[in-house]
Amino acid sequence: MSQRPINTTTNAHKISGIKHIIAVGSGKGGVGKSTVALNLALALQAQGMRIGLLDADIYGPNQAHLLHSKVQAEVIDNRYQPVLAYGLQTMSMAYLIEVDSPMIWRGPMVSKAFQQMLFLTAWDNCDTLIIDLPPGTGDIPLTLTKKAPLTAAVIVTTPQTLATADAEKGIAMFKKLEVPILGIIENMSYHSCGKCGHQEHIFGSDGATLLAQKTNIELLGQLPLSSDIRQTSDNGQPIVYQYPDHHISKTLLDIGTQIKTKLDLHFPSNRSTFPDIVIE
Amino acid sequence: MSQRPINTTTNAHKISGIKHIIAVGSGKGGVGKSTVALNLALALQAQGMRIGLLDADIYGPNQAHLLHSKVQAEVIDNRYQPVLAYGLQTMSMAYLIEVDSPMIWRGPMVSKAFQQMLFLTAWDNCDTLIIDLPPGTGDIPLTLTKKAPLTAAVIVTTPQTLATADAEKGIAMFKKLEVPILGIIENMSYHSCGKCGHQEHIFGSDGATLLAQKTNIELLGQLPLSSDIRQTSDNGQPIVYQYPDHHISKTLLDIGTQIKTKLDLHFPSNRSTFPDIVIE
Repeated sequence: MSQRPINTTTNAHKISGIKHIIAVGSGKGGVGKSTVALNLALALQAQGMRIGLLDADIYGPNQAHLLHSKVQAEVIDNRYQPVLAYGLQTMSMAYLIEVDSPMIWRGPMVSKAFQQMLFLTAWDNCDTLIIDLPPGTGDIPLTLTKKAPLTAAVIVTTPQTLATADAEKGIAMFKKLEVPILGIIENMSYHSCGKCGHQEHIFGSDGATLLAQKTNIELLGQLPLSSDIRQTSDNGQPIVYQYPDHHISKTLLDIGTQIKTKLDLHFPSNRSTFPDIVIE
Repeated sequence: MSQRPINTTTNAHKISGIKHIIAVGSGKGGVGKSTVALNLALALQAQGMRIGLLDADIYGPNQAHLLHSKVQAEVIDNRYQPVLAYGLQTMSMAYLIEVDSPMIWRGPMVSKAFQQMLFLTAWDNCDTLIIDLPPGTGDIPLTLTKKAPLTAAVIVTTPQTLATADAEKGIAMFKKLEVPILGIIENMSYHSCGKCGHQEHIFGSDGATLLAQKTNIELLGQLPLSSDIRQTSDNGQPIVYQYPDHHISKTLLDIGTQIKTKLDLHFPSNRSTFPDIVIE
């Protein structure tokens, strides 16, 4: 993390059972943020870390689908028990309520639900909790970002101009809140034809590279638009877990190594302050 | 619209200068809703209709980018003047404020801004106003949908399981609000290799077809994932306008014909009640 000094003094509050919290955000929806967040969690787990994954998209909780976990979370001693999937400790609104019908919760209810999942889940000694934020830079992602004692954030974008413009707003949001940004992951960078192998930059070229230069944030890696990652996601068998030797998995595992290195370098201490839990 | 009877008695309020209002919604972000909404507006214009286009994504107003309109809306007699682009009367938060920094408006402010754009724009005899809704089925799209006197809605989705599951929630939202749904448009249905022409269903097959069967709503058309539509969008030159003979444009123009036919059949009257404008 040579490009920008990281402020490690913010977010003094800590959550019981969690050392670091990394938010995965995107300015725009549909860039593959949830899929990247899940596979990033598995890549960090492959580094020997104990990882939690919190799906903060209250209205459209996709992680339970990506994990194929159609269960309800148990409650023991007034704490939600995280649902174990592929070794990850996971929590999602999909485990707490019936999500087939559209949710019509107002903003404050969403914020409360998020805080309950974050603070009232019995996380079991997580080295890092990955929070899969809702897309956008609106009211809800902003509120959730402010409620969570984040160590740092990672930004996911596609190379498309519209997506990088929105990702830039996401970066501005994290900077405003003094949350260090570990890097940018470019998803859907190119597509390789399944027949002839021709690589096509369907969503344009170099979008995230230019964004990284402009914002002085490191580009951690580029992932292709691929049926392989879409199919494994739709089937609830994340590519890093299912096919660790796949070239996409290797890129994701490399990103995991980079993030682990940055955490060790910039956030070595295991802060142990117990938080004041105030659910408004 | 043989599949489902349309209730034409709802939404008695009308907006001055507008005959019909069609909302373009999606359960999931990033499915190309804004691009489809813009090209659909142009396809309806090609039917000889006078069309307005309202970008209701307050946090991430993309239409101004898609239209390459970097102007500010004029105010005359306390009414916003729509910005003319490709013959369309358009309105977007991007014309009203500086949008480079992330917006941190709370829900009620978003609702108010939307109503101002909808009710206080000097729409000039629009046959149809297309509203490009924000993605999702959360608080904000729900509130905006309730505030607008919609004639009907159109749903955009990709074939991916995650997207159709969210689109189904969007359909449930419109049904709950008794807004007739004219049909589903499947975007990113397949990709044709730029070199060998091989068609690949990157996001899966038949997602929208199955959704249409399940919900008893017509599938209006399928659009490919294509560099052509992405490039024309990024360059602010919508494909229907720039390349009307392109096969994607032909599909969009055909969808426009279907929607015009449904409007003429089910909503023939030009209701002329002037609305009670109440901006809360």
